[in-house]
Amino acid sequence: MREAYHERLDGLADDLADMCEQVAVAMEKATSSLLGRDLALAEQVISDDVKIDAARSSVEATAFALLALQTPVATDLRVVVSSIHAAGDLERMGDLALHVAKTARRRHPQPVLPEQVQPYFAEMGRLAVAMAEKASTVLRNRDAQVAAALEVEDDAMDDLHRHLFTVLMAKDWPHEVAAAVDITLLGRFYERYADHAVSVARRIVYVVTGEMPGTLPV
Amino acid sequence: MREAYHERLDGLADDLADMCEQVAVAMEKATSSLLGRDLALAEQVISDDVKIDAARSSVEATAFALLALQTPVATDLRVVVSSIHAAGDLERMGDLALHVAKTARRRHPQPVLPEQVQPYFAEMGRLAVAMAEKASTVLRNRDAQVAAALEVEDDAMDDLHRHLFTVLMAKDWPHEVAAAVDITLLGRFYERYADHAVSVARRIVYVVTGEMPGTLPV
Repeated sequence: MREAYHERLDGLADDLADMCEQVAVAMEKATSSLLGRDLALAEQVISDDVKIDAARSSVEATAFALLALQTPVATDLRVVVSSIHAAGDLERMGDLALHVAKTARRRHPQPVLPEQVQPYFAEMGRLAVAMAEKASTVLRNRDAQVAAALEVEDDAMDDLHRHLFTVLMAKDWPHEVAAAVDITLLGRFYERYADHAVSVARRIVYVVTGEMPGTLPV
Repeated sequence: MREAYHERLDGLADDLADMCEQVAVAMEKATSSLLGRDLALAEQVISDDVKIDAARSSVEATAFALLALQTPVATDLRVVVSSIHAAGDLERMGDLALHVAKTARRRHPQPVLPEQVQPYFAEMGRLAVAMAEKASTVLRNRDAQVAAALEVEDDAMDDLHRHLFTVLMAKDWPHEVAAAVDITLLGRFYERYADHAVSVARRIVYVVTGEMPGTLPV
């Protein structure tokens, strides 16, 4: 019975790492659909989101069962509670990829993004995917150093996000307000996705070290 | 010992209800600072946010202690896990009020909002505060009917939010792109605040009834 318990506990981290990979794929496809005006890819992200929601429910159910039946303490308890938090963050990352895909679909076959800002989103997409993949590594290896690398990428994301606004707010912005609205929301989706990836990694560092590194991004 | 346990368990709901009232006050002041160009009010919201963060940490610490020391089961376990979720939602609501206040401060003494959209934000602010107050009632009375009323208000919020975009996207929008960017983000902050209020209420309904009403808003 205790052996099955430890298997389920380790299984939680694996399930969360799988979720990281799911949301990485979702954001990769969503970004490609946005930049390449690829409706089929956008549709895939939209229809696959239920799988991410189901994965979150499954992690929560496992965590709940462990709490109810096995009364974990100390580090084990931290693992279970952190898993509940991480599953919530990951579901939200899936939702944010979904929002990107829905924006691409809404404007199809028109491009959402003027050429001028496409490189920003290519880079924000690349960073977002890399961060979700790193979060997966943090979960599988409980590696606090990879978690630190994730913080650096989050700073790069914030930097891109800020710069994007400078471009939008420039006096000579030649595009319609509708494009500015889309770009504003899209920028926010990528930035929030990155924040949640950091939050997942920080929870794991907390499990490993017993201390939360800094406060969560707002 | 068991009596102290039940006191702490009941105390969790009270602490969360207090948090609802804190974030209601934060959003009320943030909206007033936005509409009335009141820098002092904006500063209050900004400096009070640490109290909301502290309240969240305190709820989490209590929940963790209950899990570690008292091994709650069945409904009690649902209360504890739901409290952890609700505290996270409420901290986020505080962050969103903070973002509104920071936007008001950033543009001060200029108005953030053109006159044309001020009524939207007055109404979104009113709804947001009413929803946080209702969430407090749901927590104190475990009242599923009040939770249902909250869903109706969330629909009204979504409606306002959608309509705001129609105004922004209209061909005859006379203002600068910078204003459109601010309005887009502000609209999103209110809409997400409302989503989190619904999520808090749904968690409590889950505690009372054992079933989650619908899926969480994305």
